[in-house]
Amino acid sequence: MQTPAVRAARAARGGWRRLLPSLPVLDWGRRYDRATFAGDAVAALIVTIMLIPQSLAYALLAGLPPEAGLYASVAPLLLYAVFGSSRVLAVGPVAVVSLMTAAAVGEHAPPGSAAYWPVAITLAFLSGTMLLAMGLLRLGFIANFLSHPVISGFITASGLLIAASQLKTLMGVQAQGHNFVDLLLALARQAAQTHWLTLTVGMLATAFLFWVRKRLKPLLIAWGLGPRLADFLAKAGPVAVIAVTTGLAWGLDWPSQGMKIVGAIPQGLPAFKLPSWDLALWRDLAMPALLISVVGFVESVSVGQTLAAKRRQRIAPDQELVALGASNLSAAFTGGFPVTGGFARSVVNFDAGAQTPAAGVFTAAGILLATLFLTPALYFLPQATLAATIIVAVLSLVDFGILRRTWAYSKPDFAAVAATLLATLALGVETGLLVGVGVSLALYLWRTSRPHIATVGLVPGTEHFRNVLRHAVRTSPALLSLRVDESLYFANARSLEDHVNDAVAAQPALRHVVLQCSAVNAIDASALESLEAIEHRLRDAGITLHLSEVKGPVMDRLRRTDFLRQLGGQVFLTHYQAVAALTPEVLSEPAMRPAGSRPCD
Amino acid sequence: MQTPAVRAARAARGGWRRLLPSLPVLDWGRRYDRATFAGDAVAALIVTIMLIPQSLAYALLAGLPPEAGLYASVAPLLLYAVFGSSRVLAVGPVAVVSLMTAAAVGEHAPPGSAAYWPVAITLAFLSGTMLLAMGLLRLGFIANFLSHPVISGFITASGLLIAASQLKTLMGVQAQGHNFVDLLLALARQAAQTHWLTLTVGMLATAFLFWVRKRLKPLLIAWGLGPRLADFLAKAGPVAVIAVTTGLAWGLDWPSQGMKIVGAIPQGLPAFKLPSWDLALWRDLAMPALLISVVGFVESVSVGQTLAAKRRQRIAPDQELVALGASNLSAAFTGGFPVTGGFARSVVNFDAGAQTPAAGVFTAAGILLATLFLTPALYFLPQATLAATIIVAVLSLVDFGILRRTWAYSKPDFAAVAATLLATLALGVETGLLVGVGVSLALYLWRTSRPHIATVGLVPGTEHFRNVLRHAVRTSPALLSLRVDESLYFANARSLEDHVNDAVAAQPALRHVVLQCSAVNAIDASALESLEAIEHRLRDAGITLHLSEVKGPVMDRLRRTDFLRQLGGQVFLTHYQAVAALTPEVLSEPAMRPAGSRPCD
Repeated sequence: MQTPAVRAARAARGGWRRLLPSLPVLDWGRRYDRATFAGDAVAALIVTIMLIPQSLAYALLAGLPPEAGLYASVAPLLLYAVFGSSRVLAVGPVAVVSLMTAAAVGEHAPPGSAAYWPVAITLAFLSGTMLLAMGLLRLGFIANFLSHPVISGFITASGLLIAASQLKTLMGVQAQGHNFVDLLLALARQAAQTHWLTLTVGMLATAFLFWVRKRLKPLLIAWGLGPRLADFLAKAGPVAVIAVTTGLAWGLDWPSQGMKIVGAIPQGLPAFKLPSWDLALWRDLAMPALLISVVGFVESVSVGQTLAAKRRQRIAPDQELVALGASNLSAAFTGGFPVTGGFARSVVNFDAGAQTPAAGVFTAAGILLATLFLTPALYFLPQATLAATIIVAVLSLVDFGILRRTWAYSKPDFAAVAATLLATLALGVETGLLVGVGVSLALYLWRTSRPHIATVGLVPGTEHFRNVLRHAVRTSPALLSLRVDESLYFANARSLEDHVNDAVAAQPALRHVVLQCSAVNAIDASALESLEAIEHRLRDAGITLHLSEVKGPVMDRLRRTDFLRQLGGQVFLTHYQAVAALTPEVLSEPAMRPAGSRPCD
Repeated sequence: MQTPAVRAARAARGGWRRLLPSLPVLDWGRRYDRATFAGDAVAALIVTIMLIPQSLAYALLAGLPPEAGLYASVAPLLLYAVFGSSRVLAVGPVAVVSLMTAAAVGEHAPPGSAAYWPVAITLAFLSGTMLLAMGLLRLGFIANFLSHPVISGFITASGLLIAASQLKTLMGVQAQGHNFVDLLLALARQAAQTHWLTLTVGMLATAFLFWVRKRLKPLLIAWGLGPRLADFLAKAGPVAVIAVTTGLAWGLDWPSQGMKIVGAIPQGLPAFKLPSWDLALWRDLAMPALLISVVGFVESVSVGQTLAAKRRQRIAPDQELVALGASNLSAAFTGGFPVTGGFARSVVNFDAGAQTPAAGVFTAAGILLATLFLTPALYFLPQATLAATIIVAVLSLVDFGILRRTWAYSKPDFAAVAATLLATLALGVETGLLVGVGVSLALYLWRTSRPHIATVGLVPGTEHFRNVLRHAVRTSPALLSLRVDESLYFANARSLEDHVNDAVAAQPALRHVVLQCSAVNAIDASALESLEAIEHRLRDAGITLHLSEVKGPVMDRLRRTDFLRQLGGQVFLTHYQAVAALTPEVLSEPAMRPAGSRPCD
């Protein structure tokens, strides 16, 4: 039943050609003009100002020296500009991926040791390779198995873990913990060693940043500033905090009083680095690299799709995998660590008027200039200021409302959120994510293994059939209409047999059973055997089995089997035709079947 | 929308009462009479004759002394008679479970060593405990996740593995191998040591047993014997081989020429044994015990259901779990090993006229008498004869036709069979089974993650809508009717968004999109977010989203969300009503939409 067009479409999809990535830069680069440049340049300026402190802070969160954050914000942005299909995605270090990097690398080297950075580079290399392979093999659908509830629970738990991990920097103490409770207990034990000057500066910085985020923009507008200028000033809040605290640390000589500062950052271009070729390390890092890849891809595609839709553009998920893969490989070879498209920076880039990925190129140039000339000015920047920046950024990720919303909508979704959230807090990011995926898949399989099967009857005045327990409908004692509300496959095939057996036993005058297959989207080999078993049993009891509304793809497959040849009954195009042929009295009869005795949900 | 009857039915299903097992013996025992006794006694005699050599052979297959097979054929049968819901299931040692026992126990003790038997007892104890727990907690549905293709592939591979493992006994050599190839290579290396007398006797016994199985019964009937007597004589074939080879081994003193015989079997009742309480051993045996439990349960329930259906009886799967659990616990405490309901013996029991589980009690009595009085007569029984018995029995399990049948019907089912078969042969029974379950679940998830979405139109002269690519139907350029052929959940939510985006882009005159939800059996929280995203995007493009034929349970859930309140369009009871309200011209218009351009499967 395939049309020529269908066959042509299929042929075009196949072939070796699909293995070649496309280059979106050839599309937008060709039509680049002055107006586009203006939008991109302004956006790049704002994003650069935002990215400098963030890249330093996320490098520290990942357990790396601050310059690693700057290096991860140059080459990846250039590669994304060449391969990326989103016009406005801002690639670079992000909070959750930095936390996952710290968790994975910390298993193999102590943070701050010489062995640590090479492991982070290897992790970026593996993650980049996996993303690239997934993109070339069109495996982007794998990310679909991270459900929204799992992502929400994971992001909220990660936000809490990151905030807790920054408290030690804010307090000026040393504290390690593999999970949320350990971390808080370690902080409590170190509370006596709190460096009060650091804590005071950190708390004030945090409070100021919260105030800027929530209140400054409306206040500036109330004072008569234009909304765009007000917005820009509000975004520059972190820069102000950095400038003021760095100046005070220098002027009042805070480091001599024991406050930790960023210190010397090497000036100059990122050096060419190579990942480790230790296969045992690769094997150990494979699972973290895969999880980082999937989480990074999901975060990137979500924000990319949301922003593209606002301008009626599309992004190509498989192309995004290629672009993120290339970005991470470049991060590995230039001394960075795993990167992805960040939510907050991409929104800022979009709002600031970025038109093309050239904005990313200009941002990379900005960061490169900062690396060359600005690093001496950051020498006295207190680490507590960076911790404050992170805390304010990640607490916006924490959303406990998802628990309430999923509880109201669907208990399995709630269970998936809660399991992911608790497992991530208690067992860490990797285990937490795997638990979430496992729980959500298990709950889905469990649901489909217990299908809803409704006895249906004719809605008077229509040709439509609905559940006898929910609607006033017409039925006949000689005909049982069952609507199976699930594809039939191995996990639920036996429960269909049981249901038909029970239903037949309860209706002694029965002569026909019609399975309305409008909701049966597939019948696998196990379910086919169950249908054959049902047919045999009904036949032995003098009852004929019929099917109705079998879908095209299902029917194509059934035609290849003996089942249809041996079926005593017929296959009707519509359920109405089945009832009209088998028990025409139902069509005219005024009697209604009363609400019955089987559960309806 | 729940009726009182629904609420009552729900309440009755809950409560602590469901945790108590029932005792089917109270039902059939009360009505036991002379006619029933006659049927049971004859069946028990035939099954006992069949079970004596099988129990010895399967004990050797499991790596245990022969008497373990006899012990496993007494207490378990009594316990099953009390708790079992099948009238004719014959419980005891079976081939596949014995192979799995050998694989699991062999990891912890060398076969033949003093440490081996206690591990097998512990395995039976764990398996019995798990089965009992699954029965009391109503977890029988777990077995549904073993699909027919996985079971078929596993049973075929197990048959080949068992047959290969018996070749060494037939050749009179020592050979070990963890998989099929290893085993055959080990046999090839030992070929020079072949004990030719043993091989000759074994080959002749095998050939005779095959001849008996295939040819004897029709021959006897041709000679004028009644079919029942012919059947009985054909079943007694193994007994004849045992008698003849045992007699020859004694008369010609074969053991002195190096032939291996069964040797001394202790006479007397099974002794009371205790499982090991070593928790480390329990942890190691937990996975094999679970797999043995599930495989044994599936084999048992399949044959039990098939035979029950022939007499219009029912079996209760959860009750079967309890009965098999009790049987295995009793096997553990009387020096046996894991048991289950065997396919071949149950069919024989049924054909011979067994009416109640009392036949099992009589069989147990027969085995007990054999244990007390017959064992000296089995001293000279050649082990090669038992190997021949096993080979002939298990080769009937091997069914390569399943590969051809699943290939013709469904490629994913074929992939599941092939993966299970190859993994079991190459990696052993446990890994093979786990690979099969993993592959079949992954293929199912993969399929549901790429839903079939059909554009539908009105079938003229009906109120029914079908795929525009398969049927001559009526449509309107202002209205797009999409039938989503899958429940919407996290793995496919994004592909629905993509499909709607593409479809909308291809139809510029569009004003309404109606999603026909007749095949949508559930919408999870991720899919709800996707629907909201679709609605927003369509609204921005001046298009209204409507739903039709939303099922009761799905509608109940949607009513609790903001989605319905914010929906610009309507929810129609039938798709026909939607089209009638939105584009009434379609109902009268004679124009047909030509076969279109999207794939239809």
